[in-house]
Amino acid sequence: METTIPTISDFPLGEPNTGYAQYFSGKSWLAPLTSNKDLNVPLSNVTFEPGCRNNWHSHTGGQLLIVVGGVGYYQERGKAAVRLEKGDVVEIGPNIEHWHGAAPDSWFAHLATNGSPSTNQNTWLEPVSDEEYAAAVK
Amino acid sequence: METTIPTISDFPLGEPNTGYAQYFSGKSWLAPLTSNKDLNVPLSNVTFEPGCRNNWHSHTGGQLLIVVGGVGYYQERGKAAVRLEKGDVVEIGPNIEHWHGAAPDSWFAHLATNGSPSTNQNTWLEPVSDEEYAAAVK
Repeated sequence: METTIPTISDFPLGEPNTGYAQYFSGKSWLAPLTSNKDLNVPLSNVTFEPGCRNNWHSHTGGQLLIVVGGVGYYQERGKAAVRLEKGDVVEIGPNIEHWHGAAPDSWFAHLATNGSPSTNQNTWLEPVSDEEYAAAVK
Repeated sequence: METTIPTISDFPLGEPNTGYAQYFSGKSWLAPLTSNKDLNVPLSNVTFEPGCRNNWHSHTGGQLLIVVGGVGYYQERGKAAVRLEKGDVVEIGPNIEHWHGAAPDSWFAHLATNGSPSTNQNTWLEPVSDEEYAAAVK
């Protein structure tokens, strides 16, 4: 069955996020927005279908999320989830375990960049279970 | 006379950009969007009134612009200006002389970050003259 993807942000949707699919529950799309190696600021637009979220994970350099469409959630391990809408910016410190994704009833899109991109490494952990997700977004 | 500022983006407007006013022709506003020093990814929203542009300048680390509202222009020295609208991303290489600003008849807002933020230095040059600006945006 084909998924009908609404236009929820002004930024490109990109392609199905196959490279990271193993770390996501649900469908997502990825659009790299930068290519200048001298600049060394990675920036991508990530779009999540309703209910889609990524696994618990962390970045050695930290991460910056810039919300550009829809409604989603961000949660750090041991804390309450935060509801996100267009215009919100999330600063994720180095090595903080967290996940982000769409609300159950909304598409969601954020731009993402990393701190210390030349040395950043991602650590992917377990999926956010349906029970964890339901508790986070209720 | 008070300026009536329309809401042209989903991001905060911030305060009058007094710190950089000497390098701008026209009024602008600045909203810092990050504060986590560990993350070390500076991000600000810059809003320009119609006709406002910054001086010719360059960044040793380069710069990334993310257009979030209105209509504006970006020009590199010796090249034609590029018209910018929401959803556009501009990658500015290290030490490239350039300016950016609003269209003559539109407010404009972009997020901005720098490459190599820990060592980046800005070099501010001469204003974009009315003649240069008129030629760029015509």
